[in-house]
Amino acid sequence: MRLQHMTWMEVEAYLKEQKGIIVPIGSTEQHGPIGLIGTDAICPEVIADKAAETLGCIIGPTISVGMAQHHLAFPGSVALRPSTLILVIRDYVLSLARNGFERFYFLNGHGGNIATTQAAFSEIYAETSLNPGWGRPHIRCKLANWFGFQPVTALCKELYGDRDGSHATASEVAVTQYACPEHIKSVPMEPAPPRPRAFLDADDYRSIHPDGRIGADSFLATPEAGGKLVATSAASVIEDYKAFMAEA
Amino acid sequence: MRLQHMTWMEVEAYLKEQKGIIVPIGSTEQHGPIGLIGTDAICPEVIADKAAETLGCIIGPTISVGMAQHHLAFPGSVALRPSTLILVIRDYVLSLARNGFERFYFLNGHGGNIATTQAAFSEIYAETSLNPGWGRPHIRCKLANWFGFQPVTALCKELYGDRDGSHATASEVAVTQYACPEHIKSVPMEPAPPRPRAFLDADDYRSIHPDGRIGADSFLATPEAGGKLVATSAASVIEDYKAFMAEA
Amino acid sequence: MRLQHMTWMEVEAYLKEQKGIIVPIGSTEQHGPIGLIGTDAICPEVIADKAAETLGCIIGPTISVGMAQHHLAFPGSVALRPSTLILVIRDYVLSLARNGFERFYFLNGHGGNIATTQAAFSEIYAETSLNPGWGRPHIRCKLANWFGFQPVTALCKELYGDRDGSHATASEVAVTQYACPEHIKSVPMEPAPPRPRAFLDADDYRSIHPDGRIGADSFLATPEAGGKLVATSAASVIEDYKAFMAEA
Amino acid sequence: MRLQHMTWMEVEAYLKEQKGIIVPIGSTEQHGPIGLIGTDAICPEVIADKAAETLGCIIGPTISVGMAQHHLAFPGSVALRPSTLILVIRDYVLSLARNGFERFYFLNGHGGNIATTQAAFSEIYAETSLNPGWGRPHIRCKLANWFGFQPVTALCKELYGDRDGSHATASEVAVTQYACPEHIKSVPMEPAPPRPRAFLDADDYRSIHPDGRIGADSFLATPEAGGKLVATSAASVIEDYKAFMAEA
Amino acid sequence: MRLQHMTWMEVEAYLKEQKGIIVPIGSTEQHGPIGLIGTDAICPEVIADKAAETLGCIIGPTISVGMAQHHLAFPGSVALRPSTLILVIRDYVLSLARNGFERFYFLNGHGGNIATTQAAFSEIYAETSLNPGWGRPHIRCKLANWFGFQPVTALCKELYGDRDGSHATASEVAVTQYACPEHIKSVPMEPAPPRPRAFLDADDYRSIHPDGRIGADSFLATPEAGGKLVATSAASVIEDYKAFMAEA
Amino acid sequence: MRLQHMTWMEVEAYLKEQKGIIVPIGSTEQHGPIGLIGTDAICPEVIADKAAETLGCIIGPTISVGMAQHHLAFPGSVALRPSTLILVIRDYVLSLARNGFERFYFLNGHGGNIATTQAAFSEIYAETSLNPGWGRPHIRCKLANWFGFQPVTALCKELYGDRDGSHATASEVAVTQYACPEHIKSVPMEPAPPRPRAFLDADDYRSIHPDGRIGADSFLATPEAGGKLVATSAASVIEDYKAFMAEA
Repeated sequence: MRLQHMTWMEVEAYLKEQKGIIVPIGSTEQHGPIGLIGTDAICPEVIADKAAETLGCIIGPTISVGMAQHHLAFPGSVALRPSTLILVIRDYVLSLARNGFERFYFLNGHGGNIATTQAAFSEIYAETSLNPGWGRPHIRCKLANWFGFQPVTALCKELYGDRDGSHATASEVAVTQYACPEHIKSVPMEPAPPRPRAFLDADDYRSIHPDGRIGADSFLATPEAGGKLVATSAASVIEDYKAFMAEA
Repeated sequence: MRLQHMTWMEVEAYLKEQKGIIVPIGSTEQHGPIGLIGTDAICPEVIADKAAETLGCIIGPTISVGMAQHHLAFPGSVALRPSTLILVIRDYVLSLARNGFERFYFLNGHGGNIATTQAAFSEIYAETSLNPGWGRPHIRCKLANWFGFQPVTALCKELYGDRDGSHATASEVAVTQYACPEHIKSVPMEPAPPRPRAFLDADDYRSIHPDGRIGADSFLATPEAGGKLVATSAASVIEDYKAFMAEA
Repeated sequence: MRLQHMTWMEVEAYLKEQKGIIVPIGSTEQHGPIGLIGTDAICPEVIADKAAETLGCIIGPTISVGMAQHHLAFPGSVALRPSTLILVIRDYVLSLARNGFERFYFLNGHGGNIATTQAAFSEIYAETSLNPGWGRPHIRCKLANWFGFQPVTALCKELYGDRDGSHATASEVAVTQYACPEHIKSVPMEPAPPRPRAFLDADDYRSIHPDGRIGADSFLATPEAGGKLVATSAASVIEDYKAFMAEA
Repeated sequence: MRLQHMTWMEVEAYLKEQKGIIVPIGSTEQHGPIGLIGTDAICPEVIADKAAETLGCIIGPTISVGMAQHHLAFPGSVALRPSTLILVIRDYVLSLARNGFERFYFLNGHGGNIATTQAAFSEIYAETSLNPGWGRPHIRCKLANWFGFQPVTALCKELYGDRDGSHATASEVAVTQYACPEHIKSVPMEPAPPRPRAFLDADDYRSIHPDGRIGADSFLATPEAGGKLVATSAASVIEDYKAFMAEA
Repeated sequence: MRLQHMTWMEVEAYLKEQKGIIVPIGSTEQHGPIGLIGTDAICPEVIADKAAETLGCIIGPTISVGMAQHHLAFPGSVALRPSTLILVIRDYVLSLARNGFERFYFLNGHGGNIATTQAAFSEIYAETSLNPGWGRPHIRCKLANWFGFQPVTALCKELYGDRDGSHATASEVAVTQYACPEHIKSVPMEPAPPRPRAFLDADDYRSIHPDGRIGADSFLATPEAGGKLVATSAASVIEDYKAFMAEA
Repeated sequence: MRLQHMTWMEVEAYLKEQKGIIVPIGSTEQHGPIGLIGTDAICPEVIADKAAETLGCIIGPTISVGMAQHHLAFPGSVALRPSTLILVIRDYVLSLARNGFERFYFLNGHGGNIATTQAAFSEIYAETSLNPGWGRPHIRCKLANWFGFQPVTALCKELYGDRDGSHATASEVAVTQYACPEHIKSVPMEPAPPRPRAFLDADDYRSIHPDGRIGADSFLATPEAGGKLVATSAASVIEDYKAFMAEA
């Protein structure tokens, strides 16, 4: 159930029963020669949709532009500075908390978002930590990466071994092929060389990863594998979200 | 052509031919008893998609959360403060300008975004105005409201006369019914009373507009009317975008 | 009655009777070959003074530097970034609200301020929208342009037809000639060419408007016309301010 | 010569000869039972006008709202937070520096502005200190208090001895009586008690200085004394400004 | 070699040979009944000092107040908001980079700093990613946790098994006992209960961890164990720092 | 008693008796050919330690990086922008105030910090001045310079006359020689020339003070003199701190 497809009266009714919401958070950035620029937003969206069929929970609007400064040397990449993304997450959460949402489950598709999103949660908590008398609602935020659940990493290993890589991975490309079969791309490419070291800014990234991939043989992706990954990740999200809602 | 469904190599090729992009900008906020919370993002998205069929231009990821502080007394509304939205637009534009995009056509679905978006453009321009030697790329931004073109306002008048209203309008609800026929809602409601005065903050808004509508008989909406509005607005966007690209 | 010419005890007495204030907001920027750099601040000041004779209300200190980044390629122009002006307006309003002012009538002299000022109002309202329990005073802000009232635009048309233009207009120059007869300038100039397109940053502005005017035959200004404009605009302000104070 | 009464062409001509400007900076705040709320802006303005008659330099628009948080418990006081005032000063200076102004002489009327103004200068310098390659123009800022020159403090002592006090002083009230004879106030009051300790926030200030004065017998002010103070301070400004312009 | 104990001429000479620096980053926060409030700053400092004996590199001033909002319900805790800490790290790094430092090795003592520090690195990189023409020096930042090296975690496990816990750990208390033998505390306490769930803001933290420890039997700490931990961690730092300096 | 060497339980007990804390604030910047980069932090630390022996008060963690933009042309200098330092001081103070500290005595070692620190205090106070209903604790901040007490300036004059100078002074170097006898440096240098004028940004500073000193014959420093200065300043701090705590 996407928040954007509901009315406020439906949300009001929902809040009498539940206080949780899933927020997909992704990025808009290059994903190598065949990976979609929207990969990191598309993946958590399709998995959240799948999980919500079982959970019956609301899915908020996707934060589709994330912290991707290191991809800016490739055309089409869009990035928020960490300081901007912190404010976006803060305003987003406080808006919904204003009317009764209490537990925010961020389903993330982009490694580059992790640090900033966690910093944003601390920025939100810091306001009540510093001002205990303000009477802000009791907000609880959690970040989960769709690709980080143990069953998902096991499936990736089974599917691609060490050729999955760490950016423009075969597995994330597979998920987008499953989600957007009309946008499957094909470009000849070599196996990706191993990652030499951590990247820094955008020019540095491109100098060490000239086609954008990091150790990833994206061409191994298939929509079928994507379907399996979605099912596996959604099952983990269902379990994890339920545990989050059940926390004392 | 959605940016999110492209690869960076496709964008690189595009930039050799064109320098423009359409950026849908909307909001996530109550739209009365039957209007979707995502109305203001859905409308410019569907119209941009339609226009892009003719224009062959790229559509960037929708800025789906906007300046909607006045709707925050209704559950499900999400708002960025103006100061946050300014930073989001700045980072978005500068990211794409970094690699060659020069003309940014913001197609807007929410009256509440207008002032802040224009302030954001000035914030971007101010950097080069104050620092002429920085060598920033030559950025040109334009804001157009899908509902503001003369043929669109004429059609709204023809369809609904003065019952269209100014929030949760019959016309915008119609567009979403056309775009999302699986999410057409039905709730009994009275004709909306006239707008007594401008609203201020969220509590004030709700006190004078208890069900969220402003002078709008949303129940007059039909998907057929929505289809006509999309076609009419898209035709205006096509013309306006072309003129923007052709500017000296 | 200028706030700056009062004592706090006089203000305290005033607040027992009234809750409103007029805030002139202008700019410090080039106005073509004969227009004063202070034009946009001088105009709302003189009109506010005139209106206050009838209204008996307080006039706050003029915000004389506004959002004028596009004029920065001309010497003597001063501009606040939108993000700075938002903070200035916020602090200004909250300061006065702290002691009982409730209704803020911004009388504006500069088109470039409109978007940012409205964004600033939303920034102020957003604090209570997000934090309804904070108990902030009930603030109500309104923006009116001295040149935008129907009787004023009618008079401009009558005086100058389409030669009034949109920057360094004959009408605003006339108002300053009326207000500051000791500073009437005379420089030979041609009729201004029509506006080719919207301007962007400062260098762009100057490249398309080399002497600073936009479609304006400033040389048509006379102090007599200025006097009429002041009287006409002040009459509109009086009516509009009263209506604003009378709002439920 | 007030910048606001000039045209950009006059400024352009001026900049071929001189690079300096005087910027009056004041405050809008209570000044006890008979002191004007605008005192701290009026004083540096009248003195700058006087000095400029000799110096032939430009006077920029007065920054009339300053750092006055401690006065906010008295109606009519307006304050910018230090962080806001820093941005205002930064934008003001960089705007003028953009077109050739190099030396900024801030003539200050309010003790509460001193720390923040100096912090603002450092904020401006810090940009080039951190980024020496940016090629920003060579900006030089100086802060002078109209009341702080030795001949002025000597005259105050001669006029009022230790009854001048430190806020709503007899001397500053005298200057405003000279500058604005039509706004001389009269309210019976006792000699002010000595200052018990430094004040903190607004409520604290009012609790220890109930009528707003700090150790000042404002009622001793006369317009004649004000005239002498203006002449004396202006003479010091002339000398100090010349020395500032002559610095290597 | 602490930067604070050097002269600028010594630093100038150093920069002809080396471009690296170790920056200890810690926190000032409760560490349970016997852990020192300065634990997280003391640990990386003593380890950095030890490593620098071999490396001959400079150690910058410790960032001793970190991101510790969750500890604020315990007296003596001090925290920077994430947004503040990001600015501190940015200014710190850019200052040193201005004169030739290129590689910044942050040795961290506080889990709560990790996300924000990494966000700060991205904030720094984002400036050049967005503005490739600025010519900023080539900055490379790395974060290492003194407690995170494999030999250190192995030693902790050997020393304390699962009683080491995750806050106010026996191992970090041991390091401070070794570093500050004059400040060894003794308070009777029970074994710590297991961690029930992630904490949120300060009040929430204290409600689930009433004496401040998280699963840690701090009382098992000894200065001898601390000495071993320092030696082990310093050996890892030496190796890791050398690899960082040797990166292409 | 350093806060960093205490436990939260000890702080809790302290707060039942006292509400004050000393916060050393310094800088990390060049101090000429023989002055330590950490001079401005070392001096207030050693003096605070000495004073605390008598006062029995807590000393917070030193703010060791301050406002030193003007020193950035010398390697090893580190600076926070004023806007950053304001946030650091705000977070620091509000953190401790949250649990009962009420009076903050900043003992400063760096002239460049004075304006920004006072602006920071005003920034803190401004929050309650603007929002009197927030119920923030009653915070009282004071700034004292270790070198500014009358007995200290008298001693400096006695020791060095006018050769003490204003940066890298013989007296501050002496204090660090007393505090860190293992780091006494020796470099041949000439007597420093007199200060020609105020410095601006970093490049300007270095151009007029090529070896970093301002009018200071640092080579006159001796550890013995340093010991006397510490004792003298500490005695003044004791008196001043007691008076601050005793304020009504």
